[in-house]
Amino acid sequence: MDRVICEVGWHGVVRVNVSKVMTRLWSPVTVVTSNFEGRVNGQVAVSISAASIVPDLPRVLVQIYKTNFSHGLISDSGVCTVNFLSPDQVEMIPVFGFVSGNEINKFDGIIYETGVTGCPILADTWGHFDIKIIDSMDAGDMTCFLGSVVAGIVDDSKEPLYWNQARRTLSPEQNDHWDELVRSQISISEKAMKF
Amino acid sequence: MDRVICEVGWHGVVRVNVSKVMTRLWSPVTVVTSNFEGRVNGQVAVSISAASIVPDLPRVLVQIYKTNFSHGLISDSGVCTVNFLSPDQVEMIPVFGFVSGNEINKFDGIIYETGVTGCPILADTWGHFDIKIIDSMDAGDMTCFLGSVVAGIVDDSKEPLYWNQARRTLSPEQNDHWDELVRSQISISEKAMKF
Repeated sequence: MDRVICEVGWHGVVRVNVSKVMTRLWSPVTVVTSNFEGRVNGQVAVSISAASIVPDLPRVLVQIYKTNFSHGLISDSGVCTVNFLSPDQVEMIPVFGFVSGNEINKFDGIIYETGVTGCPILADTWGHFDIKIIDSMDAGDMTCFLGSVVAGIVDDSKEPLYWNQARRTLSPEQNDHWDELVRSQISISEKAMKF
Repeated sequence: MDRVICEVGWHGVVRVNVSKVMTRLWSPVTVVTSNFEGRVNGQVAVSISAASIVPDLPRVLVQIYKTNFSHGLISDSGVCTVNFLSPDQVEMIPVFGFVSGNEINKFDGIIYETGVTGCPILADTWGHFDIKIIDSMDAGDMTCFLGSVVAGIVDDSKEPLYWNQARRTLSPEQNDHWDELVRSQISISEKAMKF
């Protein structure tokens, strides 16, 4: 067992340990979709957490990085939809995670429905939550949105997709590309994290 | 597949579906410990989420209900420690989850260490994170704390405990008692949730 106590952060071998724990604290893989005045987008996220124990008032926390095109759409519209991918939808990760909605419309050529929030609902997912944002916390590099789940579906015949499964299905080139995108975001986050 | 769209919340059969998804959005089972001016406490929580992709600046979200004695200790001290239970520590759930720290000192008779935050560190866990609170969001019934992980351990030979595993190990009486406590908290939350 590695024991490390340090006052200013984690370094060296400890970094490995942090990621081992942190990995267990991310959600299943989702595509968070948005719609502001007809401009739709979707991005990959593993940062959804439960935030209510009241069955009639389900709530979630949704963390969105400020540099993502989705951030503005969600902030401006006050809504988003969390689409929980199923294990056979790994191909959605390059579609929604490898390019920015600032450059292209990721939904060009993709058939989708919309629910009560107006945000795109993907087909064949494990399920989705339509979300109305009710509050937010600025964390510097990202915003943590508190959202009320106003509608949704779950397909009992399916399971959610987790990131470690997705990694094994993506090609080596796709994994390399993802790593490169994450390195770039880490560099931005380091400068922007609050305090 | 159940499809339900509703504008004001979830009812009837949908409640089942919500809990199926929500269950996957809670964390492993933890005991969140606190220390304000020497008064220590610990409470059970499954509401810890990752909030940073920067390995050198790990951060988590920690949701604590306002009615919990821990809430005041964490708010006043600005620190807490998240102890991730291992699967053979289910007996910690009654110790830290069935009584209020307002009534007794849950650490009476329990041997513990303290780390850089001064909060109790339990033995034989999967690991722990010592946390400095850097921001918070008031959600009405609970506070969502943004915390910086300033120290910690992970024991690579162990695994985290999940709530569904814990349920199977707790006795029928203990499960009933937990359900009763949750019903009570649900009733309080329903009235206190913001907006």
